[in-house]
Amino acid sequence: MPAAERPDPAELPLPPLVDHHCHGVVRSELDSAAFEAFLTESDAPAALGTTFFDSQLGFAVRRWCPPLLGLEPHCPPAHYLARRRELGVREVTRRLLTASGIGAFLVDTGLPGDLTTPRELATASGGTAHEIVRLEHLAERTADTALTADDFLTGLADGVREAARTAAGFKSVAAYRYGLDFAPEPPAPAAVHTAAERWLAHRSDDPGAAARVTDPVLLRHLLWSAAHTGLPLQLHTGFGDPDLRLDRCDPLALTDFIRAVRPTGCTLILLHGYPYHRGAGYLAAVFPHVYADVGLALAHTGARAGAILAEMLELAPFGKVLFSTDAYGLPELYVVGARLFQEALAALVNGWVAEGAWSRRDAHRVAALLAADNARRVYGLGVASGRDT
Amino acid sequence: MPAAERPDPAELPLPPLVDHHCHGVVRSELDSAAFEAFLTESDAPAALGTTFFDSQLGFAVRRWCPPLLGLEPHCPPAHYLARRRELGVREVTRRLLTASGIGAFLVDTGLPGDLTTPRELATASGGTAHEIVRLEHLAERTADTALTADDFLTGLADGVREAARTAAGFKSVAAYRYGLDFAPEPPAPAAVHTAAERWLAHRSDDPGAAARVTDPVLLRHLLWSAAHTGLPLQLHTGFGDPDLRLDRCDPLALTDFIRAVRPTGCTLILLHGYPYHRGAGYLAAVFPHVYADVGLALAHTGARAGAILAEMLELAPFGKVLFSTDAYGLPELYVVGARLFQEALAALVNGWVAEGAWSRRDAHRVAALLAADNARRVYGLGVASGRDT
Amino acid sequence: MPAAERPDPAELPLPPLVDHHCHGVVRSELDSAAFEAFLTESDAPAALGTTFFDSQLGFAVRRWCPPLLGLEPHCPPAHYLARRRELGVREVTRRLLTASGIGAFLVDTGLPGDLTTPRELATASGGTAHEIVRLEHLAERTADTALTADDFLTGLADGVREAARTAAGFKSVAAYRYGLDFAPEPPAPAAVHTAAERWLAHRSDDPGAAARVTDPVLLRHLLWSAAHTGLPLQLHTGFGDPDLRLDRCDPLALTDFIRAVRPTGCTLILLHGYPYHRGAGYLAAVFPHVYADVGLALAHTGARAGAILAEMLELAPFGKVLFSTDAYGLPELYVVGARLFQEALAALVNGWVAEGAWSRRDAHRVAALLAADNARRVYGLGVASGRDT
Repeated sequence: MPAAERPDPAELPLPPLVDHHCHGVVRSELDSAAFEAFLTESDAPAALGTTFFDSQLGFAVRRWCPPLLGLEPHCPPAHYLARRRELGVREVTRRLLTASGIGAFLVDTGLPGDLTTPRELATASGGTAHEIVRLEHLAERTADTALTADDFLTGLADGVREAARTAAGFKSVAAYRYGLDFAPEPPAPAAVHTAAERWLAHRSDDPGAAARVTDPVLLRHLLWSAAHTGLPLQLHTGFGDPDLRLDRCDPLALTDFIRAVRPTGCTLILLHGYPYHRGAGYLAAVFPHVYADVGLALAHTGARAGAILAEMLELAPFGKVLFSTDAYGLPELYVVGARLFQEALAALVNGWVAEGAWSRRDAHRVAALLAADNARRVYGLGVASGRDT
Repeated sequence: MPAAERPDPAELPLPPLVDHHCHGVVRSELDSAAFEAFLTESDAPAALGTTFFDSQLGFAVRRWCPPLLGLEPHCPPAHYLARRRELGVREVTRRLLTASGIGAFLVDTGLPGDLTTPRELATASGGTAHEIVRLEHLAERTADTALTADDFLTGLADGVREAARTAAGFKSVAAYRYGLDFAPEPPAPAAVHTAAERWLAHRSDDPGAAARVTDPVLLRHLLWSAAHTGLPLQLHTGFGDPDLRLDRCDPLALTDFIRAVRPTGCTLILLHGYPYHRGAGYLAAVFPHVYADVGLALAHTGARAGAILAEMLELAPFGKVLFSTDAYGLPELYVVGARLFQEALAALVNGWVAEGAWSRRDAHRVAALLAADNARRVYGLGVASGRDT
Repeated sequence: MPAAERPDPAELPLPPLVDHHCHGVVRSELDSAAFEAFLTESDAPAALGTTFFDSQLGFAVRRWCPPLLGLEPHCPPAHYLARRRELGVREVTRRLLTASGIGAFLVDTGLPGDLTTPRELATASGGTAHEIVRLEHLAERTADTALTADDFLTGLADGVREAARTAAGFKSVAAYRYGLDFAPEPPAPAAVHTAAERWLAHRSDDPGAAARVTDPVLLRHLLWSAAHTGLPLQLHTGFGDPDLRLDRCDPLALTDFIRAVRPTGCTLILLHGYPYHRGAGYLAAVFPHVYADVGLALAHTGARAGAILAEMLELAPFGKVLFSTDAYGLPELYVVGARLFQEALAALVNGWVAEGAWSRRDAHRVAALLAADNARRVYGLGVASGRDT
């Protein structure tokens, strides 16, 4: 489409975004290899003769970020990284976060690395921040100091209860640790106790390999513990790093768990979903307590983000779709996630308005639902103070 | 695309549509909640703070139907529902059905509710109507009066034989009742007898819960009974209400059944398929007796209907794709299903003609195949009398 | 889009294509039915009242090929076939191959039929050709003359070693013969021996049915034998003929095998993938030794080829995607596969450049990677001599 005819994204008024699923950014300077490693879900360097900069995500970073540091879009990666070092990580983080258009951050604090805290993100961006507690991380921290299974389970129950007082929600990575094809019902207390004993014993035998919780009985115990708090529960689904078997992360594998957990009143938010996001949209359509996002998928598919968002907006009711960046490590990923979402959403809904399929009034209202209002309602965040600015 | 450049759907001449899979509409007035419930496959009210009107289907209804009742497109739902009550359900049904462009209706009569009969649909629309017999409903009606398994099986065989004399085809909802991953071969008579005895016994013990046939042996017996009549057999695949596990409704799960049933000469039509419709297209491409439709998926995805139809038209040969609305309850769903199909098809094929990928002559011919001619050939309906009007 | 605004594919400079996966073409004249049979993966004639010419592939052949034989695009199939017979298969093959824009052919020589050899393809096209050895075919030829399991296994090891000296790579059709859900680890030598004995015994009992290798132990032995040679290994994934169960050909089913084979240093290339190509793109993104192509899917989806290619270019890094035609039998399929790829790629990347999502320089560089450079690097082909022409 010639530039003159493209709908101007500015024509789609949006409130400050609520990024309902993200992580901290690295506090220290990154060399080229470390920067590139954050552009992929792979745990290995790029294949010989290739680079992760040559990807939709790499091109999206090169499109949106150089101008925020005073460079031309699509300048060579080496120029960008030199300019980044010149400005320093603190200044780069400040510039990128304030330019992201994100007004509120819900931060999963369970990832390793020297990362900014939610409070630091809020300060650097001028927005607000809330914590999302990663269940497996809570379990692992509790296990670090527990001497017995009883200790562990009591400590975990205390930890969940305490988190529920301050956090905006919980998150599970059962997808990575086992897969989503776990038994749907809550595990029996005796089975949980046995599994906890076994895990703690393995941990003392082999602290490296057994540090992570992978037992499906314990993973289910975590999910049900969170469900009973009444806080929203985020579930990783779909693609991510090569720890997982993607074909065991289809959100539809959660169907029986979704049914089983419904009486608790717990709200479930299915993250990412790609390439199974249409299935996530279906679940959001037929189960009142299920919501869906397309966070990670937008950033990683770059110029194709609009196609993914469109697929999510097929079956999912518009009151059920949430925005996130899933940014991790690089402040660039906030900018890219937000810009791709805004631009993709504007192109889609402005196109539908142009065809007569949607009214302009509805388009603006639905855009605000996706950008912020659905997340504010689901997480009980209240209306943004910056909403009228 | 600016309006001036949009291909005019009127440029795509189409015969009166044959809707090869639909249901009756509700005879009585509907309040707002009851109307909204027909806009979703969910069995629960919309989540707090949301409405099913905020969905692609809701927006499509608001686009196409208000003008047929003398209102502006996209007027608020409350205005539309008030106008609907003002005109009365009889007049609304008449107006919407006659405006739908559908000339022949193949009606699955196995759904509950106070619904119009095929004859009433024909009268209200000025078209023709034929019956599709839902196998599970036939089995349940037969079981209602059967005293023994022998009674039941004899009655069922009679019912299938009788239906085959008058109906245009059969339909199975084995997807909902069990899943499509059933054993492919016909069940042994002794196994069928045992399963029938067990089901009838459960029915007398617990008439509510056991009323529905869910035993895979009986479901397979129904399928094979229908296959031997030589009539086309519709199979629900893909998304639908939350009774089903969507991941057990992938049409590819039918592959071995498709192979097994091939020698009977039975034609299979895979309904809906979403989000597995590309797999349905593959099956239609490689098995001569397999056809595919994208009925329900077009209505429920609204502004995205063109994307779904395009995906179906990737592998499926053009002689193998059928149109349907799967309309149920609301006459609005006939209008929406038909308009979305016509508009999506016109945009796709006119676009391909503009690119040079298709010739205009082929485009018009293929459009007629999908709109009516394939269904007329498969169900033996003869050429429409209204074809030249 | 009006013709005047369409990006001109000529604006995307491409090197001569490297077709890294194709087959020979039939040497003899084909009647209409035989020609049509090459337009489908079905093993049966088209359903009554339909023709395989009425498909995206059929329309693509009619778009691109008639002008190369002096006819109008989209002329009736009968005219095209008459002209084809008039010119003779030799001249038709020469015209179509030289017009295809393909400079190098990697030819899987394991398909039956009176097909041109790689050398003949090279001669007819003016390009170069290399052999890809199909593992199952190698095993079957070896079994034809082996008297004992020891004979067979020694002969197979020799055959693999010899092939590795001259071939550009290996190919496995384990997808067709068993499915991709095989055990990931190498089979134990004793198990291989037992399986070989069993297969040879069946072969002498029933030479017809048992001629093909389908035992998963033997199929795994073939894969691991090839992996240890260090040559690239092509794996059929996704759709193909109705021998396979498509739902057992999801490339994600290979995840554990991909992990297991990684230490050998073997490069894996996942062919086709449709409709699971997004999963193939994910695997190419997270595993350094995995590559993906969308060969067969482009030709068979015709006017929709751009949509498939776009989906592959979501997660797959641009250094990991390879072009192929998977042409088999008809020289037309080289033309169609190449044209659809070139046009789809040009439309996509020119569109992204127009939106500002990609730079023009990157677009041209990435296009060359996909068209030829990735394949040259992976198969060690060196730079094309015709590159500067």
